[in-house]
Amino acid sequence: MFDEIQTPAVLVDIDVAKRNIERFQAYADSHGLKVRPHIKTHKLPAIAEIQLDAGAVGITCQKISEAEAMIAGGNRLTDVLITYNILGDDKLHALVALARKVRLSVVADNATVVDGLSAAFSAAGVTLDVFVECNTGADRCGVGSPQEAADLAGRIAAAPGLHFAGLMTYPPVDGAAKVQAFMTEAKAVIETRRIAVPTITSGGSPDMMSAHLAPITTEYRPGTYVYNDRSLVARGVCGWGDCALTVLATVVSVPAPNRAIIDAGTKTLTSDLLGLIGHGHVLGRPDITIDQLSEEHGRLCSAGDIALEVGQRLRIVPNHACVVTNMVDGVYIYRKDKAPELRPVPARGKIV
Amino acid sequence: MFDEIQTPAVLVDIDVAKRNIERFQAYADSHGLKVRPHIKTHKLPAIAEIQLDAGAVGITCQKISEAEAMIAGGNRLTDVLITYNILGDDKLHALVALARKVRLSVVADNATVVDGLSAAFSAAGVTLDVFVECNTGADRCGVGSPQEAADLAGRIAAAPGLHFAGLMTYPPVDGAAKVQAFMTEAKAVIETRRIAVPTITSGGSPDMMSAHLAPITTEYRPGTYVYNDRSLVARGVCGWGDCALTVLATVVSVPAPNRAIIDAGTKTLTSDLLGLIGHGHVLGRPDITIDQLSEEHGRLCSAGDIALEVGQRLRIVPNHACVVTNMVDGVYIYRKDKAPELRPVPARGKIV
Repeated sequence: MFDEIQTPAVLVDIDVAKRNIERFQAYADSHGLKVRPHIKTHKLPAIAEIQLDAGAVGITCQKISEAEAMIAGGNRLTDVLITYNILGDDKLHALVALARKVRLSVVADNATVVDGLSAAFSAAGVTLDVFVECNTGADRCGVGSPQEAADLAGRIAAAPGLHFAGLMTYPPVDGAAKVQAFMTEAKAVIETRRIAVPTITSGGSPDMMSAHLAPITTEYRPGTYVYNDRSLVARGVCGWGDCALTVLATVVSVPAPNRAIIDAGTKTLTSDLLGLIGHGHVLGRPDITIDQLSEEHGRLCSAGDIALEVGQRLRIVPNHACVVTNMVDGVYIYRKDKAPELRPVPARGKIV
Repeated sequence: MFDEIQTPAVLVDIDVAKRNIERFQAYADSHGLKVRPHIKTHKLPAIAEIQLDAGAVGITCQKISEAEAMIAGGNRLTDVLITYNILGDDKLHALVALARKVRLSVVADNATVVDGLSAAFSAAGVTLDVFVECNTGADRCGVGSPQEAADLAGRIAAAPGLHFAGLMTYPPVDGAAKVQAFMTEAKAVIETRRIAVPTITSGGSPDMMSAHLAPITTEYRPGTYVYNDRSLVARGVCGWGDCALTVLATVVSVPAPNRAIIDAGTKTLTSDLLGLIGHGHVLGRPDITIDQLSEEHGRLCSAGDIALEVGQRLRIVPNHACVVTNMVDGVYIYRKDKAPELRPVPARGKIV
């Protein structure tokens, strides 16, 4: 069914994606957890709407331009959290414009960002929901202690144009206990200051089925779960049949009995390893390692005879699905027995 | 001069790029070597024309769609080598169309590809120049021995619609001696069969200043040299001042005294390591390591106080320049004391 597609190409099995969406939504529903999927994995308004249909309360984006592209492409995408510290006049101007269109919230982990948001939104006469980003161990962004979280929450609550919306974290691996401890303490300190903490939002597909181990969490932001990938199979979160996104590639050379070259390299699969060895899984060929990528070539090696022919097509589950959809202008959406349709990826490359 | 630019953004100092182009052209001229730059680094017709002005004989592309984008954007780009095994009816059809527009050549390392090219071009009544790709040690594509090279050259020379153009290799690191040995033997065997070997083409920026150590080479295809990058600085090929491409980023969080977060992650810098530790060089701050990237965040660490403030802007030399220009729809071209201009990157994302 993929014979007409020029390779390399990114394929998405929409039925598998729907099943992945429904499975996590059912889990979240059973634990009273709201779902706000991160669109970074698919970057497609149509799939975000499927997530809403399944029960999601809104979407998560990482950058303003990503949110703009999603909102422009989906009439029903009217509740957006941007989990990023936003700075600078141009971006604040764009943020105000977005807040006039949809229910918008953002995060902040420092006073500079809070003060900038307040200046822009109070001047515009618009109120913005702001979460405090908390570092629960991933050591990326986030305030370092519940006390600091409370201090920043107080600053937000007191700032003209802003409304304190709650606490947000992107937790470390196996981080449920840390999330529970940090958030419980932060919430208590904030509430002693008579500030409500309406929402506590956590995320990450690898540990999504352990979200209930941090019961203080009220909302979860999974991203990769919609497509899954080799990194999640390696963690035991899913199987190959749950991987909705694959890369279709053609063998262009078999220069040695145990080596073959495909026409997909880092410009499709990317160099993301996520701690794995090799650059993807060739479906049906667990004996093959993709041991090297250059921009337009992937090198496949096997211990024995690789038994591939020039012209043969393979499907590869990438290490990391999210970054692959950022490499292509379009993906081929398909379902059982229907011809694949090439769909543009509106939120691709939206980095500002 | 970059205050007006929203970050992250890719900046190109066109004066530095020109100097890099001229330096290698002068070296090549002094050794009687033709230059056919690979456009994968800049993906910009205007810079390819600067390379032609400096003395390049044509351009190299990796994929058909890349060649199409370059030709559409540059009237003077009329001599194109695609260094790729091309297969499949749609691609062969596109290749014939290209060959009707420009002087076109391609490579092949196996009989399946040669036979496909021959069928398509003989049917179209067009003649295509075809090189034999040789594996001189990089173990990617390429025939494995001079004997195999001669056999495939013979097949090309005898094939309707094709003309044998010579030998091509992408050599391993420090590969000049291997190139010289392989190509000398292959050329001799081919010539004993009364087939001429008009061109022997090699490539790779890391060893470009050693190209003369393989004097059998008649043409060289450097790519990265136009911008340079951290990988080439690490090899001692150039200095930071020769790096024409940088990524402009903003510090969005300083969550710990020795840690800061910037708004550029793998969606700008990519995960390419090229054997290096860390994900880029912060200009003016050799004490900082970019130790971790996620899609939209870069984590900067220092042994002592990192001494950065939220809102501060930094410029980063990426590990690998070529892949960075593939991440953005546009780059900011600038020269001393002139306002940067945002230029689209026509050959970005051209993977088929």
